[in-house]
Amino acid sequence: MCNKKEYCGLFGVFNVEKPSDIIFLGLYSLQHRGQESAGIAISDGTTIYSEKGMGHVADVFTKSVFEKMQGNKGIGHVRYSTAGESLPANAQPIIAHTNKGHLALVHNGNLVNSVELRHDLERTGSIFATTTDSETILHLLARSKADRIEEAIIETLHYVKGAYCFLILTNDKLFAIRDGYGFRPLSLGKLHNSYILASETCAFDILDAKYIRDIEPGEILTVSNEGMQSIMPFAPTQKAYCIFELIYFARPDSYVFGRNVNIARIAMGKILARESSVKADIVVPVPDSGLYAALGFAEESKIPFQFGLTRNHYIGRTFIQPKQSVRSMGVKVKLNPVKNIIQGKKIILIDDSIVRGTTSKKIVTMLYEAGAKEVHMKLSSPPMIGPCYYGIDTPFESELIAANLSIPEIRQFIGCDSIQYLSLQGLLDSVNDTNEFCTACFTHNYPIKHHMQQFQQLRLFEKIDPSHDHS
Amino acid sequence: MCNKKEYCGLFGVFNVEKPSDIIFLGLYSLQHRGQESAGIAISDGTTIYSEKGMGHVADVFTKSVFEKMQGNKGIGHVRYSTAGESLPANAQPIIAHTNKGHLALVHNGNLVNSVELRHDLERTGSIFATTTDSETILHLLARSKADRIEEAIIETLHYVKGAYCFLILTNDKLFAIRDGYGFRPLSLGKLHNSYILASETCAFDILDAKYIRDIEPGEILTVSNEGMQSIMPFAPTQKAYCIFELIYFARPDSYVFGRNVNIARIAMGKILARESSVKADIVVPVPDSGLYAALGFAEESKIPFQFGLTRNHYIGRTFIQPKQSVRSMGVKVKLNPVKNIIQGKKIILIDDSIVRGTTSKKIVTMLYEAGAKEVHMKLSSPPMIGPCYYGIDTPFESELIAANLSIPEIRQFIGCDSIQYLSLQGLLDSVNDTNEFCTACFTHNYPIKHHMQQFQQLRLFEKIDPSHDHS
Amino acid sequence: MCNKKEYCGLFGVFNVEKPSDIIFLGLYSLQHRGQESAGIAISDGTTIYSEKGMGHVADVFTKSVFEKMQGNKGIGHVRYSTAGESLPANAQPIIAHTNKGHLALVHNGNLVNSVELRHDLERTGSIFATTTDSETILHLLARSKADRIEEAIIETLHYVKGAYCFLILTNDKLFAIRDGYGFRPLSLGKLHNSYILASETCAFDILDAKYIRDIEPGEILTVSNEGMQSIMPFAPTQKAYCIFELIYFARPDSYVFGRNVNIARIAMGKILARESSVKADIVVPVPDSGLYAALGFAEESKIPFQFGLTRNHYIGRTFIQPKQSVRSMGVKVKLNPVKNIIQGKKIILIDDSIVRGTTSKKIVTMLYEAGAKEVHMKLSSPPMIGPCYYGIDTPFESELIAANLSIPEIRQFIGCDSIQYLSLQGLLDSVNDTNEFCTACFTHNYPIKHHMQQFQQLRLFEKIDPSHDHS
Amino acid sequence: MCNKKEYCGLFGVFNVEKPSDIIFLGLYSLQHRGQESAGIAISDGTTIYSEKGMGHVADVFTKSVFEKMQGNKGIGHVRYSTAGESLPANAQPIIAHTNKGHLALVHNGNLVNSVELRHDLERTGSIFATTTDSETILHLLARSKADRIEEAIIETLHYVKGAYCFLILTNDKLFAIRDGYGFRPLSLGKLHNSYILASETCAFDILDAKYIRDIEPGEILTVSNEGMQSIMPFAPTQKAYCIFELIYFARPDSYVFGRNVNIARIAMGKILARESSVKADIVVPVPDSGLYAALGFAEESKIPFQFGLTRNHYIGRTFIQPKQSVRSMGVKVKLNPVKNIIQGKKIILIDDSIVRGTTSKKIVTMLYEAGAKEVHMKLSSPPMIGPCYYGIDTPFESELIAANLSIPEIRQFIGCDSIQYLSLQGLLDSVNDTNEFCTACFTHNYPIKHHMQQFQQLRLFEKIDPSHDHS
Repeated sequence: MCNKKEYCGLFGVFNVEKPSDIIFLGLYSLQHRGQESAGIAISDGTTIYSEKGMGHVADVFTKSVFEKMQGNKGIGHVRYSTAGESLPANAQPIIAHTNKGHLALVHNGNLVNSVELRHDLERTGSIFATTTDSETILHLLARSKADRIEEAIIETLHYVKGAYCFLILTNDKLFAIRDGYGFRPLSLGKLHNSYILASETCAFDILDAKYIRDIEPGEILTVSNEGMQSIMPFAPTQKAYCIFELIYFARPDSYVFGRNVNIARIAMGKILARESSVKADIVVPVPDSGLYAALGFAEESKIPFQFGLTRNHYIGRTFIQPKQSVRSMGVKVKLNPVKNIIQGKKIILIDDSIVRGTTSKKIVTMLYEAGAKEVHMKLSSPPMIGPCYYGIDTPFESELIAANLSIPEIRQFIGCDSIQYLSLQGLLDSVNDTNEFCTACFTHNYPIKHHMQQFQQLRLFEKIDPSHDHS
Repeated sequence: MCNKKEYCGLFGVFNVEKPSDIIFLGLYSLQHRGQESAGIAISDGTTIYSEKGMGHVADVFTKSVFEKMQGNKGIGHVRYSTAGESLPANAQPIIAHTNKGHLALVHNGNLVNSVELRHDLERTGSIFATTTDSETILHLLARSKADRIEEAIIETLHYVKGAYCFLILTNDKLFAIRDGYGFRPLSLGKLHNSYILASETCAFDILDAKYIRDIEPGEILTVSNEGMQSIMPFAPTQKAYCIFELIYFARPDSYVFGRNVNIARIAMGKILARESSVKADIVVPVPDSGLYAALGFAEESKIPFQFGLTRNHYIGRTFIQPKQSVRSMGVKVKLNPVKNIIQGKKIILIDDSIVRGTTSKKIVTMLYEAGAKEVHMKLSSPPMIGPCYYGIDTPFESELIAANLSIPEIRQFIGCDSIQYLSLQGLLDSVNDTNEFCTACFTHNYPIKHHMQQFQQLRLFEKIDPSHDHS
Repeated sequence: MCNKKEYCGLFGVFNVEKPSDIIFLGLYSLQHRGQESAGIAISDGTTIYSEKGMGHVADVFTKSVFEKMQGNKGIGHVRYSTAGESLPANAQPIIAHTNKGHLALVHNGNLVNSVELRHDLERTGSIFATTTDSETILHLLARSKADRIEEAIIETLHYVKGAYCFLILTNDKLFAIRDGYGFRPLSLGKLHNSYILASETCAFDILDAKYIRDIEPGEILTVSNEGMQSIMPFAPTQKAYCIFELIYFARPDSYVFGRNVNIARIAMGKILARESSVKADIVVPVPDSGLYAALGFAEESKIPFQFGLTRNHYIGRTFIQPKQSVRSMGVKVKLNPVKNIIQGKKIILIDDSIVRGTTSKKIVTMLYEAGAKEVHMKLSSPPMIGPCYYGIDTPFESELIAANLSIPEIRQFIGCDSIQYLSLQGLLDSVNDTNEFCTACFTHNYPIKHHMQQFQQLRLFEKIDPSHDHS
Repeated sequence: MCNKKEYCGLFGVFNVEKPSDIIFLGLYSLQHRGQESAGIAISDGTTIYSEKGMGHVADVFTKSVFEKMQGNKGIGHVRYSTAGESLPANAQPIIAHTNKGHLALVHNGNLVNSVELRHDLERTGSIFATTTDSETILHLLARSKADRIEEAIIETLHYVKGAYCFLILTNDKLFAIRDGYGFRPLSLGKLHNSYILASETCAFDILDAKYIRDIEPGEILTVSNEGMQSIMPFAPTQKAYCIFELIYFARPDSYVFGRNVNIARIAMGKILARESSVKADIVVPVPDSGLYAALGFAEESKIPFQFGLTRNHYIGRTFIQPKQSVRSMGVKVKLNPVKNIIQGKKIILIDDSIVRGTTSKKIVTMLYEAGAKEVHMKLSSPPMIGPCYYGIDTPFESELIAANLSIPEIRQFIGCDSIQYLSLQGLLDSVNDTNEFCTACFTHNYPIKHHMQQFQQLRLFEKIDPSHDHS
């Protein structure tokens, strides 16, 4: 299941000239949500054209490609690179000819019952060209006996469980869909007279577009030539906004789940400082993940903020293998300690979280080698003890250091003088939580009980093809 | 329908080391059957890997690609380039995950009921990633309730009507299938202890492999670790070997439908000479399509054979637009008249056939400009009056010159002194026909009455999904 | 002359296994010094192989390329992209077969008499394949009548005037050369038993190599199997270290001209604060050029430091044209104001310098549009009034805003509430200058009087080919 | 020296719109003269732009490249692939900035004193970017003290010895130059009001251009806006037209050295038949090198001509290694025997020549394996006993089978029943020789005594740089 997790960015636009240009810029500003592949699908009202490729947005799309893409609406997608898992065939949008017409779909999230859905679809005669959740959705839409695509979408959503934001493009409509928990963000904007949809509001800023509101959890929004229409076809459920979007993933200038990301991060740093008792000379962020929290920490603690680690901004894929002769190579191509800042100092090192611990260990080692007197590691989130099943690519629990070691053991592994995590309450306070957030990765309190769901799902599925009963 | 016609070459091999190398060479020798795209799928017993691309075999496959393709069996495909119709997504093999396992399929031919099949499949919930007949077949295989792939193949073949040779690769078997009419050729060979399948026997020669026999019309041949097994699940039908394979498409060194291609072509030329009464100085073939017939004509007529047209062997795609200043440019990049041979001569110009007439007109014009005194055009086949629905990319009837103009009018259009076609009887004699050949393009006598078939097909199809009745 | 200016990064290594890997990492960390093209030359003792290409280091070099590059010493180069000026043929290293053997050369700097040198060389029969200074040097080396390459280098350096660091690779030696003024940095390091040369010390850090010392102004350092040898063949001259390396170009973690870059920048910010009298709510850096100065300013002024502008880290080449509908597009693809930080605030905006003023104007406009109450622009260097002739790609004087407008006019053009430049003395204090720095771009006080030099140069040149006298 | 031999095709045009299109088509029809690399240089009157690449003409040039190449005159080049010797840097045209202006040069032939010239040039300070003769010529032009390029060309030609056709492009002129022996062909044509130059007349035919005349041996033809001007600055010398152009290299539809190539080849076949006494069933050409000679042989001998070997027209680079299991693989990817034609027959196999003998051996073996009863090999040229020093890439004498084995031994090596070469007198008769041809590869009678020349050359060269005497 792990290999189907996809952390992604979505963008859609309806009724503009040159939609490919607009989508390009939108995806460009969402690049941090996925660097593995990028894709665009455009409809001219009759046919959907698409272009996809491995790599960054600016590498995948060329002028000549865009000149061929005529139309006035479209969707785009950037996808996260999980190590060794990148297949060109899995790039989105996924496009298909169906009885509901020519469809293109992009997805951000993770369906917890996709294995079961796929198994049932295959059993009853569907063939799969990819290994993505997105293809599953298109199969379900096509299987629906409903005449109208709107009804088929509602029927399909009855079967799928998990975290999802979908944009679905037809030749005359654009659908924006967000699951009832609201795990992933999806916002609505307006550019002149055109509606825009994007995973984060930073995609509106690059276009000088106006943020209107978030797509509601459980909402199906339809954009067509007749305007915008919203339906909420399901009973409301508990909210479960991904708190990790605020801790790490979203861009600091985005407005996500009704919060300014940078304000939340600065607050995390301040509360972390209040919960801290360590004396030190300087506060050093791990760039760029620890920047805002470090600033908050420095402000609250009155310990000077220093750029003690520089980041190489020209990181590209390097095939050069780390050699034993070059210690901590893997980190050094990205980060370099600024010796004169580090030397002889007691350092508070701020990062957002620790996953496996190996990178933190390398950074700490680098700092000691650069002359640090003490390194006190501080994280702007609690210990991560559980994997995410809702669309963030975290490893198995067996690889999560905090799920396997005690905090003193983590400190020992990392090799720092002390280690401190932000408390869960501190985290919730920093985002002004009113019981809307999913914190499962810190608490094991998963919003979807997916084994229970699985049984129910199978029963529902049988409705698709009653002939099974007799086979 | 026209745009789904595919003239192609197939190759398959079971139980060899480095199947990709063997398939490469096989496809290389079948390149004349399709220059648009090439593809290979290899199974290692667990997974099917594939590599496809636009262009010639030698351009698509690289050493590094092949190093990654491990396995001991596989199939390959080359596909014909129809103007403006080449989509990367349509390149074969088509691969899918299905309830019958991981499948790869290649196809040569044309299904006359593919539109209906596809429509029914879409109507009942299938989604299509390509516009190929081959994807239709995979859907039908997946839809079959049969447990065994063998049974699913038989069931599927009940639904499809038309001309087809299929190779289907699973993780443990290789199937070779030829329709009951036998429209397209498919031969079985042996390389040491391994079975090989190829559209033409010239693919055996390049490998020093031994020709065993043709796959019979209506035969399903299964190659597995248990050896070879053949079934003939359908009632025998009239044979309808494509006579155009012998006239033009197959390589002259191939042995097709029990005939040596070159012998048939020489015979066509000889009979054409017997049916001719023109006096001339030299016999000139249009290279390379008229070579063997011209040789036969020269031998029979005692008129000297001369290479009066040279062919540029380094033809590649050129983007240079013909200019008005350069008359007959389109032909000149391929052919050049040898002035000293042509000048002052009465010429018998031999080609295999005339489709639209525009190329013949340009060649004849070139010969006159080079000083020919007379040009007598002779074709080694009868006037082409009907399109092919069985896998050869001929244009609509409205574009076939012989379907629209009388022979004197054709002569006038081409601008030659006289024109002569081989008689139908002469053609049949030259291939020693015993009522086995399809000559529909010359006679309108189509072996499959596809409108009648269409009705029957729909009824059969309903068996797949009985729930249709109620929808 | 302007189009020959090259801002670049150099790297060299002698006597290592797999020099291509080491050079790759070195260039990777020097990528900020040039993103237009990258190249590597390796000697195996008999032949020099090279690989060059347009683009980033990680794009140009592939594993398969490196497998072919065998040897134990080599040099590398990254080159700056000047708008519209990037020719593949100009990528370095430049390689030639000469009477001094097979030579490869890389260059950082700018020769002020290259036009004259080239003219003389052409006049006396040299042919040029590129438009680079580097090819001129190779011609002069080849023209030298000296038997030994060492002598030829000294002779050549007599002719060239300007700013230069060269690395020259032969099949058995590596030369590192720095002009007598010391305009550009060049440092010597050691990795185990191998000597390394790099434009900046950050290239040593990525390799865990040790910084030894700078190549002295006027020094010719020879590295061979016999070890290291240094000569200073010219009379000492005034030093003229480029102060702009400390203000902007060098990486903050580098140690350049005996100064830690980050310390110098923080000091600039502090002195700027002392020279300032503006009251404001927050200090906001233009990322990343204003980061350290802003930190210094905030510390000194006690005004809170805030990341009010975010930078898109995934900048690639975009072909999307700014539209009028998207104001300040050119800047928006790189920077986005963080509205909640900016809104209603009196902002001190810190950058390193203003060249043309157009980018600053766009940033200031963005800040006002994001709700800033006041924007006070502050620069950590004095007004730039003169172009650099010594290797930094600055535009003509007519395009330098401070050369053409008064400070109040600049403020008006930029559209900010106030503008303040660091004083020249403040700048010199921040780098602890003892009369070693070139500040010509701020003072018009150019260290090389190149028109005078030109005459002398011509006379010297005649010595190369005495036969001229008689022609 | 061997590695500098280049067999090539040249094309030039002056005063046309879109010269790149015209040159493209010209090179396209000269592709048989070189498949390794292709290049075009265009002048717009101010600057020379060029585009070069490895591979076929149709692969190297793209529409977008041509859109950038504006101008009204240009030259082009195709180059032969000598095994393992193809360097991108060596692709032509070679372009340089010189004191004679911006120059581009293409070359067909081989300078016998290029090593000496290059040595002298290097010794006196020239640097070389390539290993081509062409760069040497540009150096000599640049070294000339002459003011006018015309005089510099004459001076340069005094130094060079060997076989050459040059086209030299400046910003206002196009020069066509042929050595005094006339080793290589070079023809002048006219397209409307524009002059064209091409290695073979088939390049005129593709453009519907008119053949005017050959460039004379020793002629320097200048094309400029003032029209055409011809000078013959050297004393006439013996002619030495390469007879191998007529035997093998030139296209059969070209008119070369005043002869129609196809007529010459048919005549070779006829005379070969007259000199033959073997009885056989069929005459089989090795396609395409033996086609015309076989036709002549068949006509004269009255033995039927048959296409007993088919050629794969889609030959591309294949990386597949011949395996032991596939005998004669190397040949089989190109040629396949037509079994039904070969079986049981006594065959006369016609080819143009035998170089190493390995390919002939494979073809003969294939024929026996295909069932041939007897194979009598016949060559339309005498035994090749000496390498060519004048521009055809033949191997060292030690590799030429006829230089090392007697004819009975060759027969034994090839494994055929008999072998027969055309007599020298027969060859000369077939081309109507009046003592104009070079037959050195068959006679060892080399027109240029290059060791003697070498001495004289050195003396001449000294004039360039009298200062040598004193160095």
